[in-house]
Amino acid sequence: MYDLLIHNCHALVPGSDGLPTVQRNQDILIDGNQIVAIQPAIPADGRAREVIVADGLLAMPGLINTHAHVPMVIFRGLAEDVSIERWFNEFMWPLESNLQPEDVYWGMLLGLVEMIESGVTTVADHYFFMDHAARAVQQAGTRAALGWAVFADRGYAALDETAVFAERWHGQADGRITTWLAPHAPYTCDDDFLRAAVGHARRLGLGIHIHAAEEIGQTRASLAKRGITPIKVLEETGILAGRTLIAHGCGILPEDINLLARYADHVGVAHAPKTYLKLGMGLTPILPLRRAGIEVGLATDGAVSNNTLDIFESLRLMAMLQKHEARNPEVMTIPQALDLATRGSAAALGMANQIGRLSPGLLADIILLDLSGSHYQPLHSLTASLVYNTRASDVQTVIVDGQVIMRDRRLLTLNKTEIIAEVQKSMARLTQRIPEKRIQVYNP
Amino acid sequence: MYDLLIHNCHALVPGSDGLPTVQRNQDILIDGNQIVAIQPAIPADGRAREVIVADGLLAMPGLINTHAHVPMVIFRGLAEDVSIERWFNEFMWPLESNLQPEDVYWGMLLGLVEMIESGVTTVADHYFFMDHAARAVQQAGTRAALGWAVFADRGYAALDETAVFAERWHGQADGRITTWLAPHAPYTCDDDFLRAAVGHARRLGLGIHIHAAEEIGQTRASLAKRGITPIKVLEETGILAGRTLIAHGCGILPEDINLLARYADHVGVAHAPKTYLKLGMGLTPILPLRRAGIEVGLATDGAVSNNTLDIFESLRLMAMLQKHEARNPEVMTIPQALDLATRGSAAALGMANQIGRLSPGLLADIILLDLSGSHYQPLHSLTASLVYNTRASDVQTVIVDGQVIMRDRRLLTLNKTEIIAEVQKSMARLTQRIPEKRIQVYNP
Repeated sequence: MYDLLIHNCHALVPGSDGLPTVQRNQDILIDGNQIVAIQPAIPADGRAREVIVADGLLAMPGLINTHAHVPMVIFRGLAEDVSIERWFNEFMWPLESNLQPEDVYWGMLLGLVEMIESGVTTVADHYFFMDHAARAVQQAGTRAALGWAVFADRGYAALDETAVFAERWHGQADGRITTWLAPHAPYTCDDDFLRAAVGHARRLGLGIHIHAAEEIGQTRASLAKRGITPIKVLEETGILAGRTLIAHGCGILPEDINLLARYADHVGVAHAPKTYLKLGMGLTPILPLRRAGIEVGLATDGAVSNNTLDIFESLRLMAMLQKHEARNPEVMTIPQALDLATRGSAAALGMANQIGRLSPGLLADIILLDLSGSHYQPLHSLTASLVYNTRASDVQTVIVDGQVIMRDRRLLTLNKTEIIAEVQKSMARLTQRIPEKRIQVYNP
Repeated sequence: MYDLLIHNCHALVPGSDGLPTVQRNQDILIDGNQIVAIQPAIPADGRAREVIVADGLLAMPGLINTHAHVPMVIFRGLAEDVSIERWFNEFMWPLESNLQPEDVYWGMLLGLVEMIESGVTTVADHYFFMDHAARAVQQAGTRAALGWAVFADRGYAALDETAVFAERWHGQADGRITTWLAPHAPYTCDDDFLRAAVGHARRLGLGIHIHAAEEIGQTRASLAKRGITPIKVLEETGILAGRTLIAHGCGILPEDINLLARYADHVGVAHAPKTYLKLGMGLTPILPLRRAGIEVGLATDGAVSNNTLDIFESLRLMAMLQKHEARNPEVMTIPQALDLATRGSAAALGMANQIGRLSPGLLADIILLDLSGSHYQPLHSLTASLVYNTRASDVQTVIVDGQVIMRDRRLLTLNKTEIIAEVQKSMARLTQRIPEKRIQVYNP
């Protein structure tokens, strides 16, 4: 007797070449928090305690957001059409001086609502007051890789506290929460501070999630100030020796890729294209990174640059922009894009053996999409539809760790009305901007 | 007694600088097919025969798709990850040899369903068997500017027939249908053929809707073969002397912009960014065109390159790509992007005095958006939300020519189930590809 049967779905599974392909009319059998079998559909008899009849629905691995600042949803729309320097110094970092721990809790819940509704089951989040974020994840029933962001000017005691957080929450929520050390970036953390973070990470057996070479200006500034790139700083401070998640990397140089290739089995890069377009940051060199064996995952970044937390939008943008930049529509094909979005994102987090594929033995993080909308019809190609037609609103049902947390677009773990109301209460306070009260200065 | 009152909406209206801005809590009063007044909301008394209570909804001008091949939705997903040459010669033009007139009728209906559901109230369509497309528009209750596409190798009799279509349907459907001559492109129509199309257009008082300089390869080929650009061909054949709608123009050169500037009061350019990304075509030079006074409108192009017919996606891509290409997040601000998407698109069609703004005296083409979704919350900025957060699925109610054609996402003029079923019936026949049976050869 299985715990859950998803009956008669179309399933996005690894094909014989390893790239995702669709098998039609499949049953997915789940026991506890694991996928046990995926096989051609047979009549849904008494094989499982719970049956989801999924005729015509498409099942795919729950989406993974490999780099976000989820609670920033509370500030969305407040910093538009400005340079990256103004974005940080005049908007984001003054706004964040308004943050109270409870804002992080309610903001995290709101962002989790949005992500569940758009099919995101795992997020690698990088923010402040992360105990409150962890509490929200626990409640939501999703999976998360959480890091408490810290700047060097906060001092070593603050860094130690982020390590205490990481130790406290790693493996919590039935294993759905993992943790990372999260020093902010090489331009806000000196080398000794980064080395201290590495010390904590090694001691705890955890990875480091860090912004680096976010755009080429940072790389140039690092070269001018100290003669090495931000990626080289990651190597010299020992970060790359352990599991590393690099956010953005639009300023990664060819020489950085050669360097990263040596650490490819435990280094991933998070790619958040909407932020890069909106802030004019250029793009992560995805194709050369992947040629060098370095895994790239999809991300949204925070909602003050991205505006939403929609990984389907990131997927579509990623694929289209690779074609655009190469002026070659034959690069980043649909199977390759789906591979990056699923297995690739999991691998970038070091979780490829747990999530990111529908395969027996992997965790049961599964979303069901309703492809009956007019914007899909007629359905000549399920995989093309996934990349180029899907809207977040097509996500119908969400399963994490074997538990159904959204069914027929009804959230089963969170009270959306209450969460939105709580966030709205703080809107006036959150919008105050006093430049002198900024939490940090952007001057890479 | 007014015919229709939209009560207590937030309304996107022209601000004092001419750019769109949001006025909160407004009543929009409609008489017949016209907007009569927009004013601060007062209790909805007996002022109107029909009242739409729009508390918290955002009203904006119905979206305008300035260049599409709507019935191509029947082929969507069938030509992915291929070069533009293969896209035409191995996929699109062989597929179109399968077209029956009835396919255009049902395909147009299906595309209209998708567009109504995503807030598009006017489309400039460029396709074949256009009597059938016109019939579909008449039924749907939307507005359309229709042109029957023709290649020179079809002969002058075929061109004459497209003119007969244009004459027959111009002003039909209570004025909702206007028509254009639609010779395909300079690379598929010789100069004499284009001149003959101009003759028809002048005689009928109509404009010409034509593909030109779609990408830089076409411009280079034209320069190599005959020493002038495709835009110069439009001038030499007399097209630019009258109302002209140029599709794409990613291959427009600076010298072309100087030339077009002389015709700026009656020439518009349709910009379909998703197609350009997917086919690696580069981008329309929007900023220089607008600096030269040439209006640019948003478009989807056909669904075999775009995959969907979603103008909100075109809007977001357009704005973000301008920032990306300029590596400057301060260009194409939110008000400028909204202006291009509304007034600009109307102006590109020569319809700025009829549609594209919520203003007294203009036609009542209005959409209402539900901004209550989690991806909008908290709603710090309504205009930022419109550009960067809105999904087609947020469109709640659609009014064209004063008539409600979708209410609370329920279509009032079309039977979606029947339309999808009819299109699905033909799927197998439509997917056949025999290269020798292509309708045209791409060799610019």
